[in-house]
Amino acid sequence: METYVLRPIGVVRSSLRDLENAPRQPDEGAPEAELAFDPEVAAALEGIEAGDIIELLTWLHQGSRDTLQTRPRGDAARRMTGVFATRSPDRPNPIGLHTVRVIEAGPGTLRVAGLEAIDGTPVIDIKIALGPQDVR
Amino acid sequence: METYVLRPIGVVRSSLRDLENAPRQPDEGAPEAELAFDPEVAAALEGIEAGDIIELLTWLHQGSRDTLQTRPRGDAARRMTGVFATRSPDRPNPIGLHTVRVIEAGPGTLRVAGLEAIDGTPVIDIKIALGPQDVR
Repeated sequence: METYVLRPIGVVRSSLRDLENAPRQPDEGAPEAELAFDPEVAAALEGIEAGDIIELLTWLHQGSRDTLQTRPRGDAARRMTGVFATRSPDRPNPIGLHTVRVIEAGPGTLRVAGLEAIDGTPVIDIKIALGPQDVR
Repeated sequence: METYVLRPIGVVRSSLRDLENAPRQPDEGAPEAELAFDPEVAAALEGIEAGDIIELLTWLHQGSRDTLQTRPRGDAARRMTGVFATRSPDRPNPIGLHTVRVIEAGPGTLRVAGLEAIDGTPVIDIKIALGPQDVR
């Protein structure tokens, strides 16, 4: 099958430095982070404002692309499960999907709440999140 | 910035043949579709069942990667908006994000409801969707 080239559009700047300290689920708490964008794509941020909920797509560069099955949350008591039935960072295309709230939108940057991604994680896409009352 | 190689894991099989006939928003109705997976990754589907809600990531191969701003829904009355503030298929990394329900899980295939993606669209990732009562 044809392959495609992903070009990161920016990078995560966060106090999270490694996966061990990264929370596994949103309700375990994750720090605010800054998204710093490539100046070449900054125009694509126009219209994103504080308070918006966005779907942030990252490239989980530390994920293992050869892993097809895993135990959810590393729990040895659980049976092996296909990675597509989980949120594991280990998967053939290690894309991270994070629904986060924008705290501040600056020129070429966004500050977001509660992001479970380590410092240096490449950002590959952003989409406005659609709620029932928020179709645009 | 470093680039990454995306390898499709499967393909969309749908009665939708072109973008003109593709609905723009979920509530406008979209047909059922089949996702046919590369046999090499079929083990990663283990655990996905009929009724599950999944986040399906596709590569919108007809999207324009040079487009940074657009008018939402092609409406000339709206002002130009950054593509990251929209769900447009035109964006630097044209990744589609679809939240869909699994109707049937077969060996190496999934049948899903209401998918707005044309026949032949590459599939690049699948994640189980997390609801408040559905953390795994």
